[in-house]
Amino acid sequence: MSELSLGSFSFEDVPTEEVEAAEELYGGLAADVRRLVDVTIRSRVDAGRVAEARELVQGAADVLARDALDGPAGVHYNAHGRSWNWGNTVVGVRNAFAPPVRLVWGDDDVVRSAVTLGAAYEGPPGSVHGGVSALLLDHLMGETASARHTRLTVTGTLTLRYERPIPLGPVRMEARVGKEEGRKVTVEGWIGPDDDSGPSVRASGLFIVPSWAAGPHGADPTPPGGSLD
Amino acid sequence: MSELSLGSFSFEDVPTEEVEAAEELYGGLAADVRRLVDVTIRSRVDAGRVAEARELVQGAADVLARDALDGPAGVHYNAHGRSWNWGNTVVGVRNAFAPPVRLVWGDDDVVRSAVTLGAAYEGPPGSVHGGVSALLLDHLMGETASARHTRLTVTGTLTLRYERPIPLGPVRMEARVGKEEGRKVTVEGWIGPDDDSGPSVRASGLFIVPSWAAGPHGADPTPPGGSLD
Repeated sequence: MSELSLGSFSFEDVPTEEVEAAEELYGGLAADVRRLVDVTIRSRVDAGRVAEARELVQGAADVLARDALDGPAGVHYNAHGRSWNWGNTVVGVRNAFAPPVRLVWGDDDVVRSAVTLGAAYEGPPGSVHGGVSALLLDHLMGETASARHTRLTVTGTLTLRYERPIPLGPVRMEARVGKEEGRKVTVEGWIGPDDDSGPSVRASGLFIVPSWAAGPHGADPTPPGGSLD
Repeated sequence: MSELSLGSFSFEDVPTEEVEAAEELYGGLAADVRRLVDVTIRSRVDAGRVAEARELVQGAADVLARDALDGPAGVHYNAHGRSWNWGNTVVGVRNAFAPPVRLVWGDDDVVRSAVTLGAAYEGPPGSVHGGVSALLLDHLMGETASARHTRLTVTGTLTLRYERPIPLGPVRMEARVGKEEGRKVTVEGWIGPDDDSGPSVRASGLFIVPSWAAGPHGADPTPPGGSLD
């Protein structure tokens, strides 16, 4: 269980439009870097071409490093309840490893996501790394436990059952809250190919609302709410 | 349980020195891209500089794409038992997301690894994403189950217990085989900061030796052995 507090999140006096403009600017850069990560794995060019590419990559990193935060991106929110976690491994729009995943909250209380996983997500030959399924489900289920960001939760336990490999390519995943008992929330989820073949990996998670964030005397979960994943 | 077979792995008639030269060549490129992924998250340069960086990144990707595999990197081995999985999300030396993790097999039967996790591995502010801990442990424990690559295993179930957040920075992890019963192997593991504070996330996994790979009539697990993660 987490010992984090709301103090770990930082309030920024930035208008929402400015946050969105920055997301578009740096999100475009991250999309280019995502393509580069992928082709760095798949390329067969010779040493001369690799040297040429390295010079360009180093040049780009030098340009970006001229003014950069010392540490990670963190999680921020503004006065209008807009939050942003640009470095997040699963949903961070500035993180070139994050696909990035976008969650859709259904009217049926199921949270869904569909994403395409390429060469950077490989484990067994041609298949999604089992740990990547765990990574994505941990995030999806944590967000699901937060009940549309109306409460703050931390992961207690997560159990994954691997039934069969998932081919690299389009995948989808779903999660829904199972039982709620006091500060304990159980969530069930699965991930599999984005076709009609159903779950390949099933997961069950126990999420906890920290005592300091629960009940009428707890902290206000609104800024920023969500899952501490 | 996996339906993969050894046929998923591909034999390549390539001398080990050639494999190692290619690893050094493309591994250097991946190291540069890894730095770029990190600074893409942390940069604060203005729109003009971002445009400049994007042009360089696109140029690098174009150079590398001139000759590239259509699909993922796959897992390969040669006649000398050398195997390579360059795209693997955790250990792939050509995967800029992979830290990459290197495993050390101790004489005490404990498998250990230490690695530094930066801005691309963030979940809660300043902390390692809970799903990243799951990703790394899944891989470490799968390799541990393979008993120094003398048998082939697939993940059955994996249970993670989150005790406290792990600050971004140097982390370490350990795993060891618990019980073995027929084709079932249990592995215990943990991950935490690389200091004396001990485990932050503990994990227990059940790994299976597929029936087609077990016993004297099973397939020869030597090429390439290891874990199907």
